[in-house]
Amino acid sequence: MKKRLLSGMQPTNPRLHLGNYEGALRNWVDLQSDNKLYCCVVDWHSLTTLAHDPGQIARNSREIAKDYIACGIDPSQSSVFIQSHVKEHAELHLLLSMVTPLGWLERVPTYKEKKDLVGSSERESYGLLGYPVLQAADILLYRPHGVPVGKDQAPHLEISREIGRRFNHMYGEVFPEFASIINPDESRSKLPGLDADEDGNLRKMSKSYDNCISLSETADETAEKIRSAFTTPTKLRKTDPGIPEGCAVCQYLKLYSSSWESQWDEDRKGERGCMQNKKELTESLNAFLAPIRERRAQISDDDIEDILRQGAVEAREFAAETMELVRNAMGLS
Amino acid sequence: MKKRLLSGMQPTNPRLHLGNYEGALRNWVDLQSDNKLYCCVVDWHSLTTLAHDPGQIARNSREIAKDYIACGIDPSQSSVFIQSHVKEHAELHLLLSMVTPLGWLERVPTYKEKKDLVGSSERESYGLLGYPVLQAADILLYRPHGVPVGKDQAPHLEISREIGRRFNHMYGEVFPEFASIINPDESRSKLPGLDADEDGNLRKMSKSYDNCISLSETADETAEKIRSAFTTPTKLRKTDPGIPEGCAVCQYLKLYSSSWESQWDEDRKGERGCMQNKKELTESLNAFLAPIRERRAQISDDDIEDILRQGAVEAREFAAETMELVRNAMGLS
Repeated sequence: MKKRLLSGMQPTNPRLHLGNYEGALRNWVDLQSDNKLYCCVVDWHSLTTLAHDPGQIARNSREIAKDYIACGIDPSQSSVFIQSHVKEHAELHLLLSMVTPLGWLERVPTYKEKKDLVGSSERESYGLLGYPVLQAADILLYRPHGVPVGKDQAPHLEISREIGRRFNHMYGEVFPEFASIINPDESRSKLPGLDADEDGNLRKMSKSYDNCISLSETADETAEKIRSAFTTPTKLRKTDPGIPEGCAVCQYLKLYSSSWESQWDEDRKGERGCMQNKKELTESLNAFLAPIRERRAQISDDDIEDILRQGAVEAREFAAETMELVRNAMGLS
Repeated sequence: MKKRLLSGMQPTNPRLHLGNYEGALRNWVDLQSDNKLYCCVVDWHSLTTLAHDPGQIARNSREIAKDYIACGIDPSQSSVFIQSHVKEHAELHLLLSMVTPLGWLERVPTYKEKKDLVGSSERESYGLLGYPVLQAADILLYRPHGVPVGKDQAPHLEISREIGRRFNHMYGEVFPEFASIINPDESRSKLPGLDADEDGNLRKMSKSYDNCISLSETADETAEKIRSAFTTPTKLRKTDPGIPEGCAVCQYLKLYSSSWESQWDEDRKGERGCMQNKKELTESLNAFLAPIRERRAQISDDDIEDILRQGAVEAREFAAETMELVRNAMGLS
């Protein structure tokens, strides 16, 4: 029997970007033939930060699901679904909330950060504090062998494991310990964005920096973005030496161009200009993105509703079994 | 159309007592012909304090439901159900957790008390802090006209109202303001127990004082308890004057004996002894409890499962409508 894996993304933004692909989806797709993947769009999670403006969450969730499929998630192998369509997530969240010590949640570093952003406990919601409880429910509901995750995200899973262990300790073994399935290619999983920070250093691709290549943008839009991408700032002329390690365009060439080694070499030696790099990257990257765009264009709104409906049926089927075990262990029914 | 009312009790203890009847159930029964009652056994709530030993919650819930029926709740008029059988309670709890400010919960007086009892945030659960969020979900899910409640409990409903208002403010009017339906007979709703405190004052009937008359005990058990009930401590002989206001037996006579005025008068004047009071109370109270006991004896385990199954169907039907409104208002689906 295939091993179950649970993976998910928040529909906080309407479209996924190349960083999401390299950091997560590429790994999911690699894993799906040998494992049973539950690919969740965790819409309830978006409420922890978007409660004041949730209007787009339902629409975003469909777009994210389309991105999953476009990138190669195969709904005949993997279950693609929206969290809020599987009510068992809410039930397990409630039950786990009764066994999770408040102190554990108050110590979570990302909670402290978010809390400071929000400002005061009058604006901060109870659900923000409970974010890790909902995450634990999302994972434990599928009693997975593992959760595919980027190396820097792995520590965030530890509290889910601790909540599972505490449940097992109190009520008997229901949740097997799950593994973190670390993205094997670290350089890919930290894909930089198209720009640089104030000090001229590359930083990760992120919606909040507006430095993304969206998986659903057109070839022309990608070309336009690459035209104004960050390169070696001291390379003003073709003959100036470049520093590929600090150049966004060269970083992408390494991932998407088969001749990146000679391209980097020429860049370093001042034998090629940034415009040539950009032109060649545009070709390579658009060639890479073409099948993703094509698949995406073929998915209608009706298609994705069908996929999500079927995915929810499959997820619920397994989740219901887990809840039966949970209720029996707790003596509830 | 009948007005909807929502009422519920925790299955923390296996049986309800006369204080529960006088403080709540009598009122529910009076209300049920003119209103549509949703009578919930709030089993998930018991986990906020019983998470370490939930084993009896499922069994207790059935016994509480039998007590509801025995006291006169009519399942053909009212919906009797167990909270955890209606998953919408968990879904609404999760959604309300995203809109409830943490500061509101931290200020709840009963939370502060319970928190101090538990000792430290390592033992205190996230769910204990969120108790009012779950209570708000329980109530708001039925968009009730009102909630029947004892006068001293009424302030505890205010936070549920505030959470509903906040939701309405953020997403549009979904939850109409609900009323507190105060128990009309204050003297009944604070039924004293069979004993007195260290200072010789009557105190309320409560499982934690072990001073209860259970609704499901036998006539002999009731007789035995009345035999050792607290009376006027200075009335050692029949001829000593009694103080009916401070005597548990006289308090019950007032409620269950039609000739209580002459009984009190004779007690005061030293014209009757405590044993006579006890004997007559035993008769009156057993006569009052007889039809409750009879109805209870007629309800089989299968009967109560049927009643609870049907009640959950009815509750879910309405709860599903509310959740549709909630999800639409929030833009989730």
